[in-house]
Amino acid sequence: MDINKLLAGRTKLMRASEIRELLKWVTEDVISFGGGMPDPSSFPINEIIEVTRDVLTTKGDKALQYGATGGVPELKEELMRFMNKGGIGTLGDHDVIITVGSQEALDLLGRVLIDPGDYIITESPTYLAAIQAFRIYEPRIVGVPMDGEGIIIEELERRIREIREGGGRIKFIYVIPTGQNPTGITMSMERRKALLEVASEYDLLVIEDDPYGYIYFGNDSQPSRLKAMDSEGRVIYMSTFSKIAAPGLRLGWVYATKEIIRWLELAKQSVDLHTSTLNQYIAAELLRRGVIERNIPRIKEIYRTKRDLMLQALSEYMQDGVTWTKPSAGMFIWLSLPDHADTSKLLEIAIKKYRVAYVPGRSFYPNGERGNDMRLNFTYPKPQEIFEGVRRLSLAISEYLREIKP
Amino acid sequence: MDINKLLAGRTKLMRASEIRELLKWVTEDVISFGGGMPDPSSFPINEIIEVTRDVLTTKGDKALQYGATGGVPELKEELMRFMNKGGIGTLGDHDVIITVGSQEALDLLGRVLIDPGDYIITESPTYLAAIQAFRIYEPRIVGVPMDGEGIIIEELERRIREIREGGGRIKFIYVIPTGQNPTGITMSMERRKALLEVASEYDLLVIEDDPYGYIYFGNDSQPSRLKAMDSEGRVIYMSTFSKIAAPGLRLGWVYATKEIIRWLELAKQSVDLHTSTLNQYIAAELLRRGVIERNIPRIKEIYRTKRDLMLQALSEYMQDGVTWTKPSAGMFIWLSLPDHADTSKLLEIAIKKYRVAYVPGRSFYPNGERGNDMRLNFTYPKPQEIFEGVRRLSLAISEYLREIKP
Repeated sequence: MDINKLLAGRTKLMRASEIRELLKWVTEDVISFGGGMPDPSSFPINEIIEVTRDVLTTKGDKALQYGATGGVPELKEELMRFMNKGGIGTLGDHDVIITVGSQEALDLLGRVLIDPGDYIITESPTYLAAIQAFRIYEPRIVGVPMDGEGIIIEELERRIREIREGGGRIKFIYVIPTGQNPTGITMSMERRKALLEVASEYDLLVIEDDPYGYIYFGNDSQPSRLKAMDSEGRVIYMSTFSKIAAPGLRLGWVYATKEIIRWLELAKQSVDLHTSTLNQYIAAELLRRGVIERNIPRIKEIYRTKRDLMLQALSEYMQDGVTWTKPSAGMFIWLSLPDHADTSKLLEIAIKKYRVAYVPGRSFYPNGERGNDMRLNFTYPKPQEIFEGVRRLSLAISEYLREIKP
Repeated sequence: MDINKLLAGRTKLMRASEIRELLKWVTEDVISFGGGMPDPSSFPINEIIEVTRDVLTTKGDKALQYGATGGVPELKEELMRFMNKGGIGTLGDHDVIITVGSQEALDLLGRVLIDPGDYIITESPTYLAAIQAFRIYEPRIVGVPMDGEGIIIEELERRIREIREGGGRIKFIYVIPTGQNPTGITMSMERRKALLEVASEYDLLVIEDDPYGYIYFGNDSQPSRLKAMDSEGRVIYMSTFSKIAAPGLRLGWVYATKEIIRWLELAKQSVDLHTSTLNQYIAAELLRRGVIERNIPRIKEIYRTKRDLMLQALSEYMQDGVTWTKPSAGMFIWLSLPDHADTSKLLEIAIKKYRVAYVPGRSFYPNGERGNDMRLNFTYPKPQEIFEGVRRLSLAISEYLREIKP
């Protein structure tokens, strides 16, 4: 039978992620900077084996049974304690919901907040999968340019005023303040304060996506989380176990006012009833025993070393006219070619001839504004691959730039 | 800040499940027939401990890492083999997607197929959480009455014709043919054939939700799955590990044409990227080692024994004018009071005075048509609780019926 005539309108808004499509091209001999995976050597695997056995032995009945939609209470409590070290997690009118990775948190927030035609504001570029999650709910996405210190506040204000003057409803500002995906930029303390002031002035919700905040590896001191400075309950904080423990557990969480959490729970109930009970008990026990905290310095060290390697390779091999960021957190370096370049076109040469892959930048821009950037992941490839991959990438760029020379 | 003014329109369609709300009332001394949980003694816990250790030891790197949106290939292959024993799983143009329980499958199907105002057809009554999952996408839900053999085909046809004559678009027919939730009714073989003929005649998709098909405990032979008789690719088959292994793993799956699976994958990508890799590897290994198959006769025995106990207690204690189903599969008995009764009102007496709980029937009807039924779960309560609970329920019913006597 013909399924196409039965598809919903929104289904036509679903697009295969360029990252995921790209993975299909990548064979064994291609060095890939394309993914966003942590180094598997950072997983505390022996401790996970031990903890999992203990959880199943001592509370298997509960760990294998249905659970509450909001999450396993033990995990929620441990998370409050854990967030506390990041300066948050202690507000009495706040609560936590456990989600299937932070991706589900993005979907639930879109589901609960966005009506077709509503405005949402993001950094530009921003996290591709956040754009995809929100887009299904048919908002107008307005991207605000960034510089080395993060979102540019004057530009943000200008856009808010424009939208308001046009009668538009703004549902939230979505930002990744620390080690932003894809740029690797960490928003400065000054900008963070200014962002909250603007949010307060215009009475706006802020979603703070913080996957990398617990593994900040910069030498300077880490700026406060927005949530730690939020005295008005307008910041919805979200993070994930994917970078501090392991992505395969598919565990994320949201910390916000009880009212917001209650709506997210109600939404989640019809999406998947609840997140895996077993995995939640494992995570609670990893936190309780201090496994995650003890492992964090090790992860930071792995990330810092690999970032340094990639920066070194870039300064060794990259030609004039190519620039890149120097991240203090996160998993990515953002590399920019001259304005007339198109990294989507370069990709074919890079993969097919030079056997190196990355993610072209355009799809990280909510409205596809720029095409001359690329995202490079430094956490997954092996050290020798980082060096060799950057060398190959430079050769591919040279060939491509020669080809398109005006 | 005021969150209410920022909520999306669809958020107002989200309602707390009566089942979940009910659980909050139920204290230690209340015997609850309200949940839908399997007997924890049916979990193959020692084998799960062993398998989990082996999975983490031999492929921890993969089991803890990100995975493909469609699912872990090993699990998909094992599932094809497993479904084979149910007469399906071998079609070359078909594929499997692994979901977060079957609840996520329901949400993804709604997301991909339903536009506001579309018609969908269900049995009436039907699974409460399916209604909730679909309702978010704003369909018109048409419920078709059932008798002891399942959905009444003449009524189904009449409604299809009515909708079509009114210019309505029907997106699918959703049925739970075996051990239906909430009624416990298993659709007869004749009705199954007739249902497929109707679907073919009117060119309609059929969603076959089959959580209980692998643990059929009737004495008569089990009718074929709809999918096993589907020569036109119009049946979307879905099932879950929640009843054959453990709900805490949150694993379900859909088996359908590759085209449908591809759309579901695209939808799932923005919902949660993928289902827990760890849990998928555990399930694959439980299947590969035959743990699940060896455990199934034991689950059937537990369910059959408890069903018999509840039926015995019902015939011992229940007054005239009360009727109930005698299920060959599933987890529920459907009990009906005289037409003028309202089991939502009875519930307060039952819980507060007689310390026994159930789920009132009205919310299982897509349009709330009837209020005099209730759903009783027999798989979770202990044997002595089943007897004592039915006794209490009968007392509560007597008191309530006396009260409302005309």
